[in-house]
Amino acid sequence: MLYKKRLFTPGPTMMPRNISLAMAQEMLHHRKPEFKALYEKSAVCLGRVFGTGQPVLPLSCSGTGAMVAAVCSLFAEGDRVIAIDGGKFGSRWLEICQAHKVEAVHHAVPWGQSVNPDDIEALLDADPSIKGVLAQLSETSTGVLHRVRELAAITRKRKVLLVVDGISAVAVSPCPMDEWGIDCLLTGSQKGLMLPPGLALIALSARAWEWAEAVGPRNFYFNLLAERKNYEKRQTHFTSPVSLMVGLAECLALFDEFTIEQVYRKQWALTCLIRAGVSALGLELFVKEHYAWGVTSVKLPEGVAAPDLIARAAKQYGVIMAGGSDEYKGSMVRIGHMGWIDAFELAGCLYALASAFTDCGGYLGCRNYMEQAMKAYEKALKEGCPAL
Amino acid sequence: MLYKKRLFTPGPTMMPRNISLAMAQEMLHHRKPEFKALYEKSAVCLGRVFGTGQPVLPLSCSGTGAMVAAVCSLFAEGDRVIAIDGGKFGSRWLEICQAHKVEAVHHAVPWGQSVNPDDIEALLDADPSIKGVLAQLSETSTGVLHRVRELAAITRKRKVLLVVDGISAVAVSPCPMDEWGIDCLLTGSQKGLMLPPGLALIALSARAWEWAEAVGPRNFYFNLLAERKNYEKRQTHFTSPVSLMVGLAECLALFDEFTIEQVYRKQWALTCLIRAGVSALGLELFVKEHYAWGVTSVKLPEGVAAPDLIARAAKQYGVIMAGGSDEYKGSMVRIGHMGWIDAFELAGCLYALASAFTDCGGYLGCRNYMEQAMKAYEKALKEGCPAL
Repeated sequence: MLYKKRLFTPGPTMMPRNISLAMAQEMLHHRKPEFKALYEKSAVCLGRVFGTGQPVLPLSCSGTGAMVAAVCSLFAEGDRVIAIDGGKFGSRWLEICQAHKVEAVHHAVPWGQSVNPDDIEALLDADPSIKGVLAQLSETSTGVLHRVRELAAITRKRKVLLVVDGISAVAVSPCPMDEWGIDCLLTGSQKGLMLPPGLALIALSARAWEWAEAVGPRNFYFNLLAERKNYEKRQTHFTSPVSLMVGLAECLALFDEFTIEQVYRKQWALTCLIRAGVSALGLELFVKEHYAWGVTSVKLPEGVAAPDLIARAAKQYGVIMAGGSDEYKGSMVRIGHMGWIDAFELAGCLYALASAFTDCGGYLGCRNYMEQAMKAYEKALKEGCPAL
Repeated sequence: MLYKKRLFTPGPTMMPRNISLAMAQEMLHHRKPEFKALYEKSAVCLGRVFGTGQPVLPLSCSGTGAMVAAVCSLFAEGDRVIAIDGGKFGSRWLEICQAHKVEAVHHAVPWGQSVNPDDIEALLDADPSIKGVLAQLSETSTGVLHRVRELAAITRKRKVLLVVDGISAVAVSPCPMDEWGIDCLLTGSQKGLMLPPGLALIALSARAWEWAEAVGPRNFYFNLLAERKNYEKRQTHFTSPVSLMVGLAECLALFDEFTIEQVYRKQWALTCLIRAGVSALGLELFVKEHYAWGVTSVKLPEGVAAPDLIARAAKQYGVIMAGGSDEYKGSMVRIGHMGWIDAFELAGCLYALASAFTDCGGYLGCRNYMEQAMKAYEKALKEGCPAL
């Protein structure tokens, strides 16, 4: 009761109460007119969030399900693609390709760095058999923002599809699919969309749909061609996670009121807040440039164990942060700051981080880091987002 | 405002408000101790509902996803199985097998009839290469209850796995997996479990797990071996649909208080109510024997169009029923009576059915059908469920 429990995890995120309560309404049936009306309303707004005139299709699965849907819909067995692997979710592209017999060229990028688009262009030039590039927009395991716009400028000139996992980026930082030339963009519900997990969204470009038709359905559950056919009737192929669709409509109504541009502006300013605060504390920001707008990774100095720090912040302040993956399990703290979160909460998270850090034996020189962080936030809010 | 809207569809079903509001709680993170505690609590109760000592695994998908998970986990490419096809969901087994290269022997059963277990035994005797039998417990499109107990008595003596879609049957009528000898039982959240759609549950028998190990993972998203490994840590392989897991715990707590035996008793009595009422009205029950305890199909006489009747009942009485599939689209009404529903509501549904039927030009002789239906309910409740 001293502190409220708050999720600063990079998904699930906190939820506005009006979304939670909208989802507690009486159940609807997914084949009846009420559902179709709800879906219709969301369809238009989703186009704005994805920046596309193509249908944005809801699937009943986690974000990973949508990644599988993308691979199995766009590529046939034996097709060659490049999988950009700069973290846990980049590796997931490789695993999915392997499981579904798509040949993936492993393009490793050091954790914490953004892929160099020139490297991808060189690979494509060297091997014209490559049919796709699989990337994250935001690599959730590190907090890197890959330069998807530049990747799209390369792939759109070629017969190469750019498939983007936007799970922790859609509705967090801009990613206008049609304008940039992305061929497939997907996300999950529990990130920028401020919903519980269990709903994924995916859209294909016009040319990607042609590829999907040529490849044909390869996976009974993830059949985007059948989903598109149902979309015309504002239905889903299989039973839709109705309550999440109700919540989605509520979230999109909030976005419409606030405007999606304002959402990005807030996300950018929160990113500036946490980065300024962490720097003021003398802690290391894991990603130096090309950083995500929804998750920030902090690298701890030796001698301070991340799981210990995270457990203390949770216990003492109700501040729930995430740890690092693989080799960074012991030394990284990941702070999610997307969705239903504001600057005061994030400043509180910063305080908890600092306090737990000293409790774990770390040394902090700075005292006014909260003010510095808030100032950086205010400045960023005033100046607006940088172009991506 | 005259009538409350009520779902008498065979899933989604109506929801208790305490489940809806539990799901509106602050979000939990699926990798944190709170989630593990929640999962742990549900794991024990789920064993009772499934009647198994094996883990019951939650998946983030619709019921169909769990059907795909079963086929892809238990059978390799080219394996031969029998698919019992007595309705739309029986056909779905065939489609899934085809999509995932399992060779399915099509065993057609006339719609409205239960499979004859002797026929399956004869098929298995004639073809020892058959490795599995795929069936529904309740075929939702017709309201038939297949004799799964007798099927299991046949398959358990052989090296043949019995895979049962219990989507509209689990927590509706008894299906003790271990006692009967079922090798795979699966369900969806939006039926007897009184939750929104988006969560599926699946359990394998001990010998089915051995088969799954031998087959190995064939589908990246539906990897039951990986799910079982995560189960040991009370986690899910991918992000869990957290709010549905919270609702599940609430539902299972209700079951525990009321006991699952009482749930079955109520379901049986409701089935007697609706069947007695429909008979009293002089309307035709589509399934004469071996009928499901959660959905009842009514065949309308010629001249009365089911879509018209359903639309009238919805508009005038807020009574939402489902229609028939395929050739029965115009002539069948399906009444769902599982989950959070009581006898008074179902008697009201009967009234709406009768009233809409006469409004559509049908003729009814009987006047006291509601009393007859309630009497049948009371009698069934007193006498208790028949053995299955």
